[in-house]
Formats: sequence, C-alpha cells, structure tokens
Amino acid sequence: MISVDEALRHVLDHSFPLASTSLELSTALGCTLAADVTSDIDSPPHDKSLVDGYALRTSDLGGANTQFKVLEEVTAGEMPSCKVTSDSVTRIMTGAAIPEGADAVVMLEETEARDAGTVLIRRSALPAGSNIMRRGTSLCRGDTVLQAGVTIRPLEVGLLSEVGRSQVLVQEVPRVAIVATGNELVPSDHRPESGQIRNSNGPMLTALVRSSGARAVDLGIGRDDHDILAQLVTEGLQSDVLILSGGVSAGVLDLVPDVLKATGVKQVFHKVNLKPGKPLWFGVSSPQGQTLVFGLPGNPVSGFVCFELFVRPALDRLAGRTASTAVRRRFRLACDHTHRGARPTYHPAAWEESVDDQPATAKPLAWRGSADLRSLTACNCLLVLPSGDYTLGAGQWVDGLVI
Amino acid sequence: MISVDEALRHVLDHSFPLASTSLELSTALGCTLAADVTSDIDSPPHDKSLVDGYALRTSDLGGANTQFKVLEEVTAGEMPSCKVTSDSVTRIMTGAAIPEGADAVVMLEETEARDAGTVLIRRSALPAGSNIMRRGTSLCRGDTVLQAGVTIRPLEVGLLSEVGRSQVLVQEVPRVAIVATGNELVPSDHRPESGQIRNSNGPMLTALVRSSGARAVDLGIGRDDHDILAQLVTEGLQSDVLILSGGVSAGVLDLVPDVLKATGVKQVFHKVNLKPGKPLWFGVSSPQGQTLVFGLPGNPVSGFVCFELFVRPALDRLAGRTASTAVRRRFRLACDHTHRGARPTYHPAAWEESVDDQPATAKPLAWRGSADLRSLTACNCLLVLPSGDYTLGAGQWVDGLVI
Repeated sequence: MISVDEALRHVLDHSFPLASTSLELSTALGCTLAADVTSDIDSPPHDKSLVDGYALRTSDLGGANTQFKVLEEVTAGEMPSCKVTSDSVTRIMTGAAIPEGADAVVMLEETEARDAGTVLIRRSALPAGSNIMRRGTSLCRGDTVLQAGVTIRPLEVGLLSEVGRSQVLVQEVPRVAIVATGNELVPSDHRPESGQIRNSNGPMLTALVRSSGARAVDLGIGRDDHDILAQLVTEGLQSDVLILSGGVSAGVLDLVPDVLKATGVKQVFHKVNLKPGKPLWFGVSSPQGQTLVFGLPGNPVSGFVCFELFVRPALDRLAGRTASTAVRRRFRLACDHTHRGARPTYHPAAWEESVDDQPATAKPLAWRGSADLRSLTACNCLLVLPSGDYTLGAGQWVDGLVI
Repeated sequence: MISVDEALRHVLDHSFPLASTSLELSTALGCTLAADVTSDIDSPPHDKSLVDGYALRTSDLGGANTQFKVLEEVTAGEMPSCKVTSDSVTRIMTGAAIPEGADAVVMLEETEARDAGTVLIRRSALPAGSNIMRRGTSLCRGDTVLQAGVTIRPLEVGLLSEVGRSQVLVQEVPRVAIVATGNELVPSDHRPESGQIRNSNGPMLTALVRSSGARAVDLGIGRDDHDILAQLVTEGLQSDVLILSGGVSAGVLDLVPDVLKATGVKQVFHKVNLKPGKPLWFGVSSPQGQTLVFGLPGNPVSGFVCFELFVRPALDRLAGRTASTAVRRRFRLACDHTHRGARPTYHPAAWEESVDDQPATAKPLAWRGSADLRSLTACNCLLVLPSGDYTLGAGQWVDGLVI
C-alpha cells in the first residue's frame, strides 16, 4: 500500500492549472490571478496633502503667528490654479493636489482664519515635506503590483480597482461533480425505512467543494448497479473532477472501481496506508488528467479526511493557486492520547489558541468509528499521528492540519 | 475621544440578530442556525457491521478453522431475514444490519469461502461486539445535535442531512449597502483625469462584506453634494447596514455627518482614539438600531481597519453568530519595531507559522501612509500597538488580529 505522501504526489502529478478566463472584478473574489498585474497609474497621481490645512513655503515661516493671504481653496478632485508665493498660502483638503511653490502643509488646527481672505499660521517652523505624500509613493506606472497565482481577497479587489482592472484574467474555477453511491441511501428529505440511512456524504462533499472555492454539481445518489453508475460516471466526466463516495471497499456491491474501468478511467492507485480512508481510489480519464476521479470511502469521516488530504490540494492546483489552502500547524496535546495500529492516523480534534503566551492546544475528539458525523462537527483540525502503539502525554507536540 | 473598546461596545449595543428564515440546506452554507436541531433518528439505525465479513455467535468459535453454513448475504440497505444459530453465519457487508443471534463480525480476510454455501473461519476466538457499531452510538432520536448560533460548515451540512433537515431555520443574512463618497473618485473602468483617482474603497468594502458572509449592495460613488448624498443615504437605509466611505473628516466637503443628521440618522459617536481610523462615525436610523450606519474614513487602510474592528463584529452579531469571525492571536515580532504617537495603532503586518515548535512571528509592513493599498495586500493581520513612543525588540510578544 502506498503512503499518504506518495498518494498525494500521484494526485498532484495529474493536476494541472485550468485555462484562464476574463471575469468582471466584482465576481472574481476568491479566484486566482492568471497573469501578473501592472499599474497604469502613479499613486498618488500627484503630490497630495495628508491633512486638511494650508499649503505654504516653509522658508516663509519666520516666526509664530505670521499672517498670509489665502489664494484659493482646493478640495480633492480639483487641481490648484495659483502658485504659492512668499506671502500667500492655499487652503487645501486631505487628498488634494499640492499647489506649485508649496513644500509643506500646516494642519488646520495650527491656524486661525481671519476675514478678508487671510489666515494666521501659529506654527513658527515646519520641516519641508510635512504632511505631503509624494506622487508615486504607493505605486508607479508600470510597476508589477500583483503576481499570477495570488488569490483575490478584498484587499486585492481594492488594489485592482485602483489600477483600473475592472476586468481581470483569472484561472477558471474547477467544476466538480459529486455522486454518493449505495443502495442504503435515501435523500435527506426522505424518511429512511429499515436498513436505510439518509445521504449525508453527497451534501457534505458538495459543501466542501464550494467552501474550497470550486463549483459543485451534485449528481445525487447512485444505486449499486453497474449501468446506473456507468451513466452517472459518464455524466460526471464532463466536469474537471468527479468525486464518488462509497463502493470502493471489498464488498460484493463495491462496483465503483469496475465501473470506472469500464468507462475508460485509468486507475492511478487504489488504497492508501492511512486511517481513516484506506480504500481511497484515484484515477484519471486521460493521461493528461482531463478529469480527476476520486473514489472516496463511504464512511463520512473517512470521506472528509480524504477530501482534506487529497481533493483540496488537487483543487488548489487546478485553480492555479500558488499557496495551498491546507494549513499545517503544530499543537500541544491538551490531554494524554493513546494511538494503536499500523496505519498513520489523521485524528479529528478541536484546537484553540491559548489565552496567555503559550502554544495553541489540541484535544483529540472521542471518535466512535468513522461514521460518527456528530462528534466530527466539533472538529477544526486533524492531528497527524504516526503508525504504532504508543501514548503521547499532555503537552507533547503534535502536527495538525487546520480545517 | 472614546477608546476602541468603548466604540465597539456602542456598536454592539445597537446590533441585534436579524429575524430567522427557512432555507434549503443546499443554500445555507455559512449561515447561522436560528434554532437547536434535534435528531429524528438513531444513528446507526440498527446494530451495523463496520467491516465486510461474516456475522456469527462468538460462543460457537471453538477452535481455528471451524466450518459454518452461510445463511444469506446482507448488503447495506437490506435487512437480514435469518437468525444466526450455532452452526451458521451470515455474509455481511460494511454498514449492513447485524442479524438476530449474531454478536460479532469476523473480517473477510480471516475467512475462506468453500463451495456449497459454507465458509471456513480461521479465527479461533473473538470478543463479543467485535466490528459491530451499536444502534444509536453516534446519535439517538431526540438528541440535540446542533445548537442555535452555530455556523453551518460542510460538516454541519453532513449532519443536518443525516437528521433530515433539508430545510433549516437560519438567521437572515445581513444586507449591507455601500457608498463611496468624494468628487475625486471615478469608477475603476474609467481613466482618471488630473486630480482624480479610481474608486477602490467601494469595491474593497463590497468584497469585505461578501467575505464576511453578508449580502452587499454597491450603490456606487456619491459626489460631495448634499442632495445627491441624501438620496443615496435614503436608499442605503433600506438595508440592515449602510457603510459610507469618506466625507467624515474636517474638510469643507466632509458632508456625511450633516447629511446623515438631515436624513434622520442619530449619531452614536464620531471619532475614536485609534490610528488609522480616527474620523470614524457611527449612528443608527432608529433607537432600535433598524439600520446601522458607519461613516468610514476615506483612506483605504483606515477604512479597512475600521471594517475589521467595528463592522465585522456588528455583522457577526446581526447574523446571530455566537463566535466572532475576528480571531485574536499572539505573535512574536520578527524584527524591531518603533511606535510613535498618542493613539493606539492597528499596524498592518504579515504573520507566518514557524517551521519548528516556535511561536508564529509577525513582521510589521512598511507603511507609507494610510492610502497605500499596495503594501496592504501583503497584510494578513493587524498588530495591536498601545499608544506612546517606544521600541519593541525582535522576539517580543504582540497581540494581533488575524485577517
């Protein structure tokens, strides 16, 4: 059986960024930039005032309470029309352009307006450049301001707006089809009969796909029947990724690997040395990885762990992200924890920041088998526990994958 | 001037959870549960097998290689029809119901199928209960499985599906109107003329609102004209929250406070002892806080900081979230940092996890004035620096607000 690292390498080796597409900026939040972005402007576009006050020549401040003639008033969006000279100043507002001749702005609070267009400056001296932000301080025309691969957050939306990118070239968002398989499944708005359970994997995986920024196509429940599954798989292969849940173990109705083979999907690996999630199946519909196909175990916790370990990194790669959305962090164990078994385990846990300057702690969740979704809702990380039989004491360091 | 804590208390004192509404589960990702959720089922619904194998009576395992008659084959979704007796077993698949009489399941790998409906069990003994998950282990009918105030993540979507909540009662999502004010502003698809800049605040705030799970209504640019602004404010007061950007300082065209007063918005506070963001204005359109109105400073960094400190917690409260989405964390400074000034500062910084078992470090960003959006795109936290003139050494602890 291959290791988690080998399996992930296989998955990533078949995952390539999708094509790029032009989107309106207002719909591009969360997308990945597909090309570097350069500025078409200087920012600020002119020397500008950082305060409300008076623009003046600092060499003319001979002593306190000098009186000056007010040439004009300039607000943001206007350009000054007069040159500031030795006996004159310009009333200026925050963000407005500094008039010719002036080399500083004195704050309104240090002045006193007189009638007949004059003002008293109480300040006796001021360093040149005071309260002025020079043209191009923040960015210059031609500068690369954002690089391909960056995720567009609200701050990037602001910067892209500033440099005029109301349309942006982004990576296409991956399209992911989801099929939950199993004769025992009924939709969540049905009352289960004897032996039946409601389909929780389909909706959970659909939500996981959406929360990772991809587009989800929920194809519903596939009965354990070769023809029905083959039809759903064929439909799912229209997407960039197809996720099947269930049907990958050794049971008599675990038809998924055979159905995938029959529909032309080439197996890359089946089974990973991992707990939970051992039966994971992965393949591609063409050598170029046209559609990535994940056969996830049917148990909800196993499916969740496999999504976080393998599907999410693949979606990041398809979306062209340079930084993975999967965050690793070290925690101190909040309590003793005993591990048993020959497989490395990804154990659901709840972590929290500590109140003082201590490291964050993580508490492994009581875990009543891999079908226990209720306990799992307390989970916000997976602890990475090596194989073997051992007990870790409270306070020991453990690796975790933050959810 | 009031402190940040006082200002936040005023904001929260006027913020009340919105009404609840029923949504289809598939559209409720990220919403807040408005009522406790109880289970209408036991999970598992019957004692079930955790493996593929044979259900048997452990008392009948006398020694290795005992041969048994196979009564029937039960897959998930079917109910067994035969009772297991001393010389018989039932072939059973993962998830299927345990037949009457059986008290354990032996794994397929420890058996050998014989022809004529018999099987050899290689195992000589097995504890009762092995590989069986008891009915109701995960949840019992009537149990409260999720509490009001919880945010619906993918895991909660799974659990809600399991207990049949295809419709869920959630808090209404806040509706937030956004107006960017200023004569100097042009839309981001325009080429700025002399003295003009593109509107970056409107798109950035719209994206911030969306990323906090609320619905944004971008009302565009408001010129610095009393009637134009009054009309936009009146339109914005149809929403749960109105955010104005710019026009709240002491300039001659800073009309926002007057316009808000004229349109019946009651001021709660104006100005906060904070850098950047001092000119912040906050008010409500009725004593019951029907619409919360934030007048944010026009500088992008100031507006961003005020959004994170005051608007986001208000949106959390309106959305009924019990846990704030604003995460505080302690960092070690990555380098020396000098602070000057009488106002507490929220300094943009970049933090990262350390590679070893050391605490995460944060590096304050070079900050060329509060209009510098380009530097801000490297920001993923705000360091909380108390007022005063001092230098903190590399390695010292600082509080941060994770973005």
